[in-house]
Amino acid sequence: MENRFYTFAGGVAGPWKVVSVQACVGTGLETPGCVQIYNESLGTLPEGASWMLRGVTSNQRYVNRAEQVSLVSVQPPLGRPEATCAALIPILKTAQWWALTQEERREVFEERSSHIAIGLRYLPAIARKLHHCRDLGEPFDFLTWFEFAPADGAAFEDLLAALRATLEWRYVEREVDIRLVRGN
Amino acid sequence: MENRFYTFAGGVAGPWKVVSVQACVGTGLETPGCVQIYNESLGTLPEGASWMLRGVTSNQRYVNRAEQVSLVSVQPPLGRPEATCAALIPILKTAQWWALTQEERREVFEERSSHIAIGLRYLPAIARKLHHCRDLGEPFDFLTWFEFAPADGAAFEDLLAALRATLEWRYVEREVDIRLVRGN
Repeated sequence: MENRFYTFAGGVAGPWKVVSVQACVGTGLETPGCVQIYNESLGTLPEGASWMLRGVTSNQRYVNRAEQVSLVSVQPPLGRPEATCAALIPILKTAQWWALTQEERREVFEERSSHIAIGLRYLPAIARKLHHCRDLGEPFDFLTWFEFAPADGAAFEDLLAALRATLEWRYVEREVDIRLVRGN
Repeated sequence: MENRFYTFAGGVAGPWKVVSVQACVGTGLETPGCVQIYNESLGTLPEGASWMLRGVTSNQRYVNRAEQVSLVSVQPPLGRPEATCAALIPILKTAQWWALTQEERREVFEERSSHIAIGLRYLPAIARKLHHCRDLGEPFDFLTWFEFAPADGAAFEDLLAALRATLEWRYVEREVDIRLVRGN
């Protein structure tokens, strides 16, 4: 059975070297030297780590079948040799967001914010993997991991700027933007 | 901050005495003497317990605003003095269910199975609390806890029979039905 649990540990070891840690909304996170990704839910902080964030990949919550077909047809895998840049973006949404019904969230997410449509514009350049953590008792609701080639760095900035300008982002109460490069 | 985590432990202690444990679909669970409910996610099995099931209450996944308003207006709380009967029903759904998109699941759940409408018919007699556990690495996807007065026992059987006859239930691959009474 597939293990859907992941831990991102910011510390002194790991293949991803941290370039920057920026607090976008609310409290930030300490800037570690490296990030190590574990395909398990760690019970204790690894030696030398200043933080760890845990999440689980899960079923789709918003995409409809047509969007799902579009995404699957163009989504690249993680781990492409040329994709030496990465970003880890933990996000916490407001209590107001979670008090919306599913259809009200979908309305904000896609009909009014085009979250999926915006993401599709940057495929297949930007690989993306979403981890859920709201129901794990973690400090964030989502951890999104992105990978892209250095040449697609400007496109990645455009993608983030477009998402952050949406109505959906008004429901974000904490966001940290961690940039990384694959170590030599 | 509200603690949304719960553990149901089947063992030798607890206010709820087990009347029966029935395997409805798939493998059952050992029949303990009592069930104790903890408002936390336990890390280890309590002494004398033969099993524990952990879940978390979460945001609504399927109800629309009109349904939500109807539910809130008639839903009774847990812990009513007269509600001395309870049921704990852990359910696991198939991989096929989880591969559906959100709108496809809603279509099966309500438009074709009337899950919410059926539940509403038995309110305010049957109190109900849903705990999610699919993303916690637990053996089930959901744990539903029901409480009702002895006089509403037949209505509770009707409710379960109606739900189990739905299209939605064809996506259930494991279901255990644990009946309990509050100890004297």
